[in-house]
Amino acid sequence: MEPIDLVLAVDIGGTTTSLGLLDRAGADLGQATLATEGHRPAADLVARIAARADVLRDRLDQPHRLRGVGVGAPNANGRRGTVDNPVNLDWGPRTDLAGLLQDALDLPTAVTNDANAAAMGEWLFGGARGLRDFITITLGTGLGSGIVAEGRLVEGADGLAGELGHTVLEVDGRLCGCGNRGCLEAYVSAPGLCRTVLALLAERGATGPLAAVPPRELTARRVFQAAMEGDPVALAAFDATARWLGRKLAEAVAHTRPEAIFLCGGLAAAGELLRAPAQDWLDRFLFPAYRGRVALRRSELPEAGSALLGAGALIWSRLEGQGGPA
Amino acid sequence: MEPIDLVLAVDIGGTTTSLGLLDRAGADLGQATLATEGHRPAADLVARIAARADVLRDRLDQPHRLRGVGVGAPNANGRRGTVDNPVNLDWGPRTDLAGLLQDALDLPTAVTNDANAAAMGEWLFGGARGLRDFITITLGTGLGSGIVAEGRLVEGADGLAGELGHTVLEVDGRLCGCGNRGCLEAYVSAPGLCRTVLALLAERGATGPLAAVPPRELTARRVFQAAMEGDPVALAAFDATARWLGRKLAEAVAHTRPEAIFLCGGLAAAGELLRAPAQDWLDRFLFPAYRGRVALRRSELPEAGSALLGAGALIWSRLEGQGGPA
Repeated sequence: MEPIDLVLAVDIGGTTTSLGLLDRAGADLGQATLATEGHRPAADLVARIAARADVLRDRLDQPHRLRGVGVGAPNANGRRGTVDNPVNLDWGPRTDLAGLLQDALDLPTAVTNDANAAAMGEWLFGGARGLRDFITITLGTGLGSGIVAEGRLVEGADGLAGELGHTVLEVDGRLCGCGNRGCLEAYVSAPGLCRTVLALLAERGATGPLAAVPPRELTARRVFQAAMEGDPVALAAFDATARWLGRKLAEAVAHTRPEAIFLCGGLAAAGELLRAPAQDWLDRFLFPAYRGRVALRRSELPEAGSALLGAGALIWSRLEGQGGPA
Repeated sequence: MEPIDLVLAVDIGGTTTSLGLLDRAGADLGQATLATEGHRPAADLVARIAARADVLRDRLDQPHRLRGVGVGAPNANGRRGTVDNPVNLDWGPRTDLAGLLQDALDLPTAVTNDANAAAMGEWLFGGARGLRDFITITLGTGLGSGIVAEGRLVEGADGLAGELGHTVLEVDGRLCGCGNRGCLEAYVSAPGLCRTVLALLAERGATGPLAAVPPRELTARRVFQAAMEGDPVALAAFDATARWLGRKLAEAVAHTRPEAIFLCGGLAAAGELLRAPAQDWLDRFLFPAYRGRVALRRSELPEAGSALLGAGALIWSRLEGQGGPA
């Protein structure tokens, strides 16, 4: 029996780390989760990842070759293979995560942040298959972006390209976690949607079901439910979000001219409520030569497994010489 | 004597077309100009270009090989090699300029627009030598941009990437030639600078030397002179222009994370009056992780010859397999 080629995909989160053995088609041949235990050093997590990978491989009843390791991690720098100042991990200013994993597993290793992993996953396994130029927008607690242009993942001079969440939506606008004001992420993200609800309640007065929720308990899911039930405030919040997103995506198109833009992440699960009006606003703000020619689409990856698929796609593409030099 | 390798560089303008024989270092071994005569068909211009190229070659007293033809033209599409709906040429909706030149000269031919040609010129012969990630901004009657990311000129899905002049500076702002409102180009360009002077005169009242100039006779050069003489209105117009440029360049950095941004074109000749404050505003608006790490620089190409150098750089890079697939 011919051995099959596999990669180890790793998704490191603040509390949980997921592992998966993926074949070239993205099929999952074994999965496991670990507690990240971010208060312990990175080397500790790496040792546990290596041990668990051995267990997964032992369980496989078919001959295989493990070809490489792909990792999605917060604050990861794809160019350097490092994790820099992660918010939820006590790893210090810079950890050579690719180096640690390479030493532990003796395999080619690629590391990137969640947004770039999402782009790679969409490219190899999702709706972006065969495209040369596209963008993925990850809408969750922040707004992440992964840009593929001219058939390459754009990482930029220091591995930090694709920070569309930190372009200016409104000069001197809302305070953003990055320290600047008016960033797109402070408006278009799960917390941004909740802030928009508060702004609308300030403007219209405390009306409707969302006015009964203490602001710190407000969630994007709650706003979505209210919108589904016809609450005008929640619907207006989604309208405003779609308009802002459409406008800024029109600007992104003027940079790299993608064929399509994919929405993924938790907030993208609001589906047509967000996508359809955002597509309309996108077309309205587009440079006329682009109008009607850029499709805003939902990710074709399952949300639950997308992080592992992205990490797997990253290392598959590196092994095959795509996605820019390692 | 070993023959030297040359390319034919062609810069097609509304009234004049320039030709040059360039070696790999960008040295000019013969130059000529033709009347474009845009009311006649493209094939007519192509025939005259081919004839004049023969004259230039005959005049050369050293053995040489002509390797290819590079062309900068208005409304050129680098991906297709076409010129589409040029404003100052009666060529109709789409002319296969690369095809016509290839047939006439039997040489590899590459065509692109002025902004992308400027980027290629800076890359091969100017300040961007050796860079993987940079942007050129051409400030003149419009605001053009050429983006190089991951070592490739970004042309995008249909050859129309890099239209930063048509990103939104101000929602519902000034009417732009493209039909949209609030485009950066309507503010940051030679005509944009003049419109800013008028807006300032509207706000402050008709004060200072520029209030004596009929609006349709106002030029960027005149505003520059007034600024040099200390006119507060002209100085305020440059300040506002620098601020707008810095802000939007900060957003461009968030897309492709260039190492440097080069200013070229007529308005860039205002020099430090524009560049220095724009660098300050750029840093002020940058995502903190980028701050202090993106240099705003003036083009290192001579303004007079930059279009030919760009056209020459384009074909040299194609011959050498750079700048994306032909």
